[in-house]
Amino acid sequence: MKIQERIAALRQHMGARDIEAYIVPTADPHQSEYVPDYYKTREFMSGFTGSAGTLVITRREAGLWTDSRYFLQAENQLKGTGITLYRMGVDQTMEDFLRDKVSPFGKIGFDGLCFSVHRYRELAKAMGTRALITDVDYVSDIWTDRPHLPGHPAYVLSETYAGQSVAEKLRVLRFMMRERECDYTFISALEDVCYLFNLRGDDVEDTPVVLSYALISADEATLFIQPSKVTEEVQRALAAADVTLRPYDAVGDQLAEVAGQKVVYLDADATSITLFRALNDNVKIQYGTNLTSLMKAIKNETEIQNMREAFIKDGCALVRFFNWVETGAQTGGVNERSAVRKLHEFRTEGEHFLEDSFAAIVGYGSNAAIVHYDPMDADAPKTIEARGLLLVDSGGHYLEGTTDITRTVAMGPVSDEEREDYTLVLKSHIAGMTAQFPKNTTGAYVGAVAMAPLFAAKKRFFHGLGHGVGHILSVHEGPQTFTERPVAGALVELAPGMVTSMEPGLYIENSHGIRIESITLVEERGENEYGTWYGFECLTWVPIDTRPVDVRMLTDAELDWLNSYNETCFEKLSPHLDGEDLNYLAARCKPLERH
Amino acid sequence: MKIQERIAALRQHMGARDIEAYIVPTADPHQSEYVPDYYKTREFMSGFTGSAGTLVITRREAGLWTDSRYFLQAENQLKGTGITLYRMGVDQTMEDFLRDKVSPFGKIGFDGLCFSVHRYRELAKAMGTRALITDVDYVSDIWTDRPHLPGHPAYVLSETYAGQSVAEKLRVLRFMMRERECDYTFISALEDVCYLFNLRGDDVEDTPVVLSYALISADEATLFIQPSKVTEEVQRALAAADVTLRPYDAVGDQLAEVAGQKVVYLDADATSITLFRALNDNVKIQYGTNLTSLMKAIKNETEIQNMREAFIKDGCALVRFFNWVETGAQTGGVNERSAVRKLHEFRTEGEHFLEDSFAAIVGYGSNAAIVHYDPMDADAPKTIEARGLLLVDSGGHYLEGTTDITRTVAMGPVSDEEREDYTLVLKSHIAGMTAQFPKNTTGAYVGAVAMAPLFAAKKRFFHGLGHGVGHILSVHEGPQTFTERPVAGALVELAPGMVTSMEPGLYIENSHGIRIESITLVEERGENEYGTWYGFECLTWVPIDTRPVDVRMLTDAELDWLNSYNETCFEKLSPHLDGEDLNYLAARCKPLERH
Repeated sequence: MKIQERIAALRQHMGARDIEAYIVPTADPHQSEYVPDYYKTREFMSGFTGSAGTLVITRREAGLWTDSRYFLQAENQLKGTGITLYRMGVDQTMEDFLRDKVSPFGKIGFDGLCFSVHRYRELAKAMGTRALITDVDYVSDIWTDRPHLPGHPAYVLSETYAGQSVAEKLRVLRFMMRERECDYTFISALEDVCYLFNLRGDDVEDTPVVLSYALISADEATLFIQPSKVTEEVQRALAAADVTLRPYDAVGDQLAEVAGQKVVYLDADATSITLFRALNDNVKIQYGTNLTSLMKAIKNETEIQNMREAFIKDGCALVRFFNWVETGAQTGGVNERSAVRKLHEFRTEGEHFLEDSFAAIVGYGSNAAIVHYDPMDADAPKTIEARGLLLVDSGGHYLEGTTDITRTVAMGPVSDEEREDYTLVLKSHIAGMTAQFPKNTTGAYVGAVAMAPLFAAKKRFFHGLGHGVGHILSVHEGPQTFTERPVAGALVELAPGMVTSMEPGLYIENSHGIRIESITLVEERGENEYGTWYGFECLTWVPIDTRPVDVRMLTDAELDWLNSYNETCFEKLSPHLDGEDLNYLAARCKPLERH
Repeated sequence: MKIQERIAALRQHMGARDIEAYIVPTADPHQSEYVPDYYKTREFMSGFTGSAGTLVITRREAGLWTDSRYFLQAENQLKGTGITLYRMGVDQTMEDFLRDKVSPFGKIGFDGLCFSVHRYRELAKAMGTRALITDVDYVSDIWTDRPHLPGHPAYVLSETYAGQSVAEKLRVLRFMMRERECDYTFISALEDVCYLFNLRGDDVEDTPVVLSYALISADEATLFIQPSKVTEEVQRALAAADVTLRPYDAVGDQLAEVAGQKVVYLDADATSITLFRALNDNVKIQYGTNLTSLMKAIKNETEIQNMREAFIKDGCALVRFFNWVETGAQTGGVNERSAVRKLHEFRTEGEHFLEDSFAAIVGYGSNAAIVHYDPMDADAPKTIEARGLLLVDSGGHYLEGTTDITRTVAMGPVSDEEREDYTLVLKSHIAGMTAQFPKNTTGAYVGAVAMAPLFAAKKRFFHGLGHGVGHILSVHEGPQTFTERPVAGALVELAPGMVTSMEPGLYIENSHGIRIESITLVEERGENEYGTWYGFECLTWVPIDTRPVDVRMLTDAELDWLNSYNETCFEKLSPHLDGEDLNYLAARCKPLERH
């Protein structure tokens, strides 16, 4: 069936219930960042494969809204489908489109399982008198060869890696619930459920989680999971922590049994409107970020110690990769796509490697200016030559932890503009990594001090400076973020144990792109009469290339930091490398000197 | 009558209506920062003269809550009154005290005219089932020799100084009202009323405003003011702008006449609960910062040009003062109090000087460590000697604008610790003054970059980095603030025309205090592919003392900034000074060199 036929079939369903517009979002019932194939309904209905976008089908028209990362790709993929591309921030908004096309008391339909409470309410507010119909899942009827729901078994992340038993985590969670005077907490986010029960799985690309929900009260903890995924090991571990197992599909029925007047804590961004509505009308709701999100943001000592190890393994893979790619660039025959494959291969050779933590970005020359560039998805990958800059942003999940790192490396001679931009990004990176601040400081502080060197040169980038990093969960997690912009995550107070990326960049369209990313851990730096002081321990150890640096632009303190960082890289990685890789490491870690 | 007799008399009134606790706040019906003598009820009832504090009288006890600035002063002034001092942040909170002392359904009384809607609601929430009685003004009954309500005439601030006619301002305000779909805006804040109507007066200490309210609709603008204050000039000017005049006391009656279903915009922090309740129950309320606050925060070209002049006049007064005080410190016989008087005298000699914009802080040595030190209020002012640091924070209102400046100056030899702290504060000041940022950046960014040099040394201060400055209104105004802390004012986006102080400091108890404050104006710095860029024009021109600087702690860029700033001071001020004052200026503006 072609896209146009699928849309026609959907319109027939819409007609039967008099629905004037049908929305197909990019989401699953857990509001995951990456969705399992089963939930790729928007891709099935539109042919557009980008990671973000919303399709709206009316009786006569169809539109797809996506952001600037995907303007070009969507334009190509939508050709011949009859679907109009609406560029977010440029063209008419989806809300305005719906208000235009749907009559004042008309019906707008979608599958409420894939719509968060928050998103539903925003839409309801924007649509005024129009009716939102949430119990219509027409795509299921049309998608006859739909992939199965993922069926990978779950497994236990042992305390050796998790650092805390399920019973202990439940104790902390219940303490937080008592403090907030709530009787239940309902958890939809997969990372949160898996964190709480020390479970991992393979249901979602790049995120080692298992499809599940959790409902916790003072005396009961219920995990909703497909029975086929529960191994004996999982069963034993959960029984030991007094966790009740119920089928994944039973969650709605169980929510319906929560008694009126009870207080249920839930996250309006992670909970679907359909499951929210399963709750009795008399149940009281307390909204907030999942309490488990706050818990998992602060890594425990075991997690931290393990992450340090994971980053060493990852650093070695990166050094071997950069040695390979530089040699290849000189001898010829390496392109962005073969580089992605080789990088994955080097990671795979690391002990306890599970999978990549996201699709690696390997951007050479002007491709590096495309912030979310994926060479595996590109029309024609570029050959990597012995000149200019190569940007590599990648990461892996190991049993010890999750990594995420970007280095930009000179493949040969670089232009003056590349050199200046590289040095500015490096100054920004150093300002962030060396930030020191009192207790109760937020990520907005770190965002500001790191942006200052770029702003001073009237330059900037348009992605976040830093995101939380999960522990063998999503590589992007909340609640804290580093950014100078007034967003919610920037107002979260930084606390020891928080793990966050530091990744300033500069992107010059059709020319070059630069990003330098390491992962930080908030550490305590003692107390004095002004309070308790924090700073960052760096977890990432891969040399920062000194060849594209304009040393005249660095202060003495910056130059010292750079040389000391690279020296430490040598100390940490050299015991694990040999031969050409070790020689390469030594060359890259040599101190930069003023002429 | 002594304090104890006053309290006994008040308890008699309380008994008659069965009120278990009576609250005397520090406030007037406009929630002004400084209150007219007539409204100094808390001072009358307690004997405590500090600028902030709340008195609570129960049948058997009396407590006064004030902040750390006034712990010592309050302790002294409350001796023998029977009033217990409750130190905010240390002792029991007022809310906990009230919950302890007032029975579950008991009555708590106060004069609702001096309680904002916001404060009332916070209290109501904290008090649960207890009843709040807002129509009891017992102090008026007891205070037989109460000062009169201020009766100074209002005067017109001509367009030469205001830069915009009343009619134009009303047009802008009504445009903002239409945008927000509100029918009325009710303005209680004196600065806002005076700004809107281009009026000034002398009713409140340090703030050239006149007691008044305003009610604005699409076709009517009403000013509520005591008829005795309306000169012919004022009457003519307001008639020209179609402003209706009504007596100050008529405001409640007029509010009661607003028809149901109409939407009234008001500021819950500035409007009293009593006037709020005068509105019909069916009136719809839209809460928000006064629209006029947003308008007056962005200074117009005339105001800006005039402010530049005011700062030059003010700078000359300061230079003459510092020359006088340094000479005096060497010859002897100068103390903090005589210095305050002399400083006022030098300001008075400036053309168009109106009054001081706040009580000058002249703190020598360890007194400078007391952030809100007022030598006129101190037990014994210190003699200023020819050694150590002198901190002078002061400002004036001129017809051209309002100033606020702090300089810390070496009276002679300084200790190594003083030198290090002075240089750190200077680095912080420079980081703030040289901040550059794109459009849509908030004061949190400026706060962070300016704090960085202090945080790097594990030092900090506990007041805001910068506040908005009014134009011949309050020296402290919103909505923007500079601070790295996540407070509301730090989330306001900075826009060209905003005038804000930049005043980092360090305070070492019993040793020394340092603050360096200049006033900034947000200026445009052009556009490029990344957007529009802003930075600061400095309005303040008084040399920054280079004698206490440890030049080794400054980067080359910082040293260049300092020397260039002082050089510009000489250029701007030297044409207006002569003799010893000019020599003094020249000495203070000499470039600092590395040894």
